[in-house]
Amino acid sequence: MEGTQVSVKLLEELREVLAEDRVTTNETILEQHSSDESYHTPYLPDIVVFPENADEVRDTIKLANKYDAPVVPYGYGSSLEASVIPQQGGIVIDFANMNRVLEVREDDFLVKVQPGVTRSQLEKELKKYGLFFTVDPGADATLGGMAATNASGTTSVKYGIMRDSVRDLEVVLADGSIIHTGSLAAKSSSGYNMNGLFVGSEGTLGCFTELTLKVIGIPEHIMAARAEFVSVDDAVDAVIAIMQAGIPIARVELVDEEAIKQMNLYSDTDYHEVPTLFLELHGNKAGLKQDITFMEEIVRDMRCRQIEFETDTAGRNKLWEARHNAAYAFIHNHPGRKQMVTDVCVPISELAGAVKDAREAIGESGLSGGIVGHVGDGNYHILLMLDPGNPDDIERANQLNERIVGYALERGGTCTGEHGVGTGKQKYQEREHGHALSVMRKIKRVLDPDDTLNPGKIIE
Amino acid sequence: MEGTQVSVKLLEELREVLAEDRVTTNETILEQHSSDESYHTPYLPDIVVFPENADEVRDTIKLANKYDAPVVPYGYGSSLEASVIPQQGGIVIDFANMNRVLEVREDDFLVKVQPGVTRSQLEKELKKYGLFFTVDPGADATLGGMAATNASGTTSVKYGIMRDSVRDLEVVLADGSIIHTGSLAAKSSSGYNMNGLFVGSEGTLGCFTELTLKVIGIPEHIMAARAEFVSVDDAVDAVIAIMQAGIPIARVELVDEEAIKQMNLYSDTDYHEVPTLFLELHGNKAGLKQDITFMEEIVRDMRCRQIEFETDTAGRNKLWEARHNAAYAFIHNHPGRKQMVTDVCVPISELAGAVKDAREAIGESGLSGGIVGHVGDGNYHILLMLDPGNPDDIERANQLNERIVGYALERGGTCTGEHGVGTGKQKYQEREHGHALSVMRKIKRVLDPDDTLNPGKIIE
Repeated sequence: MEGTQVSVKLLEELREVLAEDRVTTNETILEQHSSDESYHTPYLPDIVVFPENADEVRDTIKLANKYDAPVVPYGYGSSLEASVIPQQGGIVIDFANMNRVLEVREDDFLVKVQPGVTRSQLEKELKKYGLFFTVDPGADATLGGMAATNASGTTSVKYGIMRDSVRDLEVVLADGSIIHTGSLAAKSSSGYNMNGLFVGSEGTLGCFTELTLKVIGIPEHIMAARAEFVSVDDAVDAVIAIMQAGIPIARVELVDEEAIKQMNLYSDTDYHEVPTLFLELHGNKAGLKQDITFMEEIVRDMRCRQIEFETDTAGRNKLWEARHNAAYAFIHNHPGRKQMVTDVCVPISELAGAVKDAREAIGESGLSGGIVGHVGDGNYHILLMLDPGNPDDIERANQLNERIVGYALERGGTCTGEHGVGTGKQKYQEREHGHALSVMRKIKRVLDPDDTLNPGKIIE
Repeated sequence: MEGTQVSVKLLEELREVLAEDRVTTNETILEQHSSDESYHTPYLPDIVVFPENADEVRDTIKLANKYDAPVVPYGYGSSLEASVIPQQGGIVIDFANMNRVLEVREDDFLVKVQPGVTRSQLEKELKKYGLFFTVDPGADATLGGMAATNASGTTSVKYGIMRDSVRDLEVVLADGSIIHTGSLAAKSSSGYNMNGLFVGSEGTLGCFTELTLKVIGIPEHIMAARAEFVSVDDAVDAVIAIMQAGIPIARVELVDEEAIKQMNLYSDTDYHEVPTLFLELHGNKAGLKQDITFMEEIVRDMRCRQIEFETDTAGRNKLWEARHNAAYAFIHNHPGRKQMVTDVCVPISELAGAVKDAREAIGESGLSGGIVGHVGDGNYHILLMLDPGNPDDIERANQLNERIVGYALERGGTCTGEHGVGTGKQKYQEREHGHALSVMRKIKRVLDPDDTLNPGKIIE
């Protein structure tokens, strides 16, 4: 974007290819597309467009190329690492108008959706068929956004992450060409794996215009449990023992004492303020009964103070609502503050040590924070509250993140388990990937030579 | 490779960096590395090397680059699509001496192996820890080879494919640099997904020198079953209904009447020669009991003639041995003939139609053949017997494959579910991937500009 003249011409041409009311420079709308849900600094885009099909996305990208304007795809704005913030201005493509569930192929356990479909919208649609989509990142993100960041969440321990659930993507590349990254087949050894490359590419390699996702039948029987422990060590050891016993847990969440405290303040709960596991098992009735007996033995061996089961829907919903609200509980209880959420993932044998170190780091930072973790994956988050206007807070938070990430990388972990890189985790890419980063750079350069697509994200 | 002079110099230099006895031009050894297990035409390499570590692989690739010699990585030679055949001569890197299980991380459900470790070797080692590796392609392939072709097999319906099981690869690139494609973390949203790109790249992007793989606890209880049906349609419908019911089948294999007949001739079995499902369920005792009752109801609704269960190890082993021997049964019963194995994968709703069309195609070809399929994935194989010296047989087999692949691609399937592309499936790449093939070409060109690594495979 070289000055106003070009912007005006770009705007004119965009309005020729998209309907006039779907190309806007309205201040309020620009503002709405300047930030995500994190503490990262907002930047205004120059233009926001609302395409209705792949051709309009392609035309937008072609014009962006012509006028040297960056393109940033935008779903629901729930990124935590600035993945959708248009730091170099340009065009934000908002997929709000591409929000249709296109096809449910029951017998094939597949659903085809547009990128703007949200998780809850999809869930509602699939329920009619007795099916469900397994990836649940908590936020009601769009499926396009979830694929772009390779989201996961509480259910990954059993059902895998976004990358495991994407069968095919329709993608508009930087040169305006449109490709499919996969097929309707459950597996393939044909060509190079394009699904895996594009999932998690955060809009830097292409814009998704259609997604084909794997779904499964709603489990016959669901059992939730809440188990209280004396220490984080015991809780993590219990999870390892449960997994080694082959008990197929569908969710297993660690919540530390501080996070339980904030939950109790916010939700209608009075849980003991101790390290706690929230668990869920999916299966048939007889199998779950046997699993539960076995699991009770295991957790008691790990000095579990109390375990409570919830089989009915209301009880389970209350339990998971409390867990899902953990992050909002902190926000609600700290008015005027923003939240920074760390996101490292370590080998599970390193998790107890990592969480202990994290607790120490929170203490040293002087900031308020709690820990929640997808223990089965070794992925945990610090929910850290800070004043975004206070450079000292930002500095303390960054130092804490630096320590957390360092701890994880030294032990074979990753700087981001599920939130993505955006700009927030960019500084750790070299340390984590070493020479592999140069391979990534080569791929970015050869697929987007003019750096049009979400420039400055993932790779500098 | 430009003539003998260069070969001699290359040989000399290779012998400087590897021990003399691990660089050979021995005719018998060249011959052993000229073919795979398929009907594809053998080609002799110029040199075979047996490196013992990543540095020796790197030095080999650097010398190959210097002398413009192709490099073909070789595991066990069980490829079915010529992936390991050195059609342009050059150096074959045999990983036989890199066959150590390096580390079992029980608590992390991870194992680190060298690429030459075979599947049965790994299974034996993991048993000591109560763990197992879930990918079972039938052949006792090396893990390096399985990763290179993105192998899968009978257990993928529950546990996923090779790409799902690889956490990290150490890879020597064409320029001699060494990268890691992943980490020890169970999941990551950091950088572009390199694991997925390199798994299935068949040695065209790099040579694997170390693999970190996901393992799981050995299931508490295993139940096998054999169910006989009146038609392939009924058998496939039964599988769809079982999956929709959420019964977590660990294996489900379709064997058609002709393949059952060949099994009976070869193995110690007298199964009815009708379309048959071989099934396996993993879980706890109570859960499996309930699953089986439910499954019996479902298959009876689909006109199952007979269902037999096997819980004890001996009974299960006999059943699965018969299934695993299906391909060898055909070979044994057709002395002097070679086998062509097709490998398409279709959406499961299209499977019954695909198998019917395949049966018709076998009939029209005039060749002897049977059908076995990983029904849960929609992946099936025709085991077709042909005389490799008879051009008419080859022509008929190719025509049949063409028809099978066309049928699959028209219905959103893939030309290869698990065997890889090699040169055998190259002609279908454009049709299957369309413009995405140009993205793959760009990646190959930017990572291996001199086309040193397994040239002519996957991408022309």
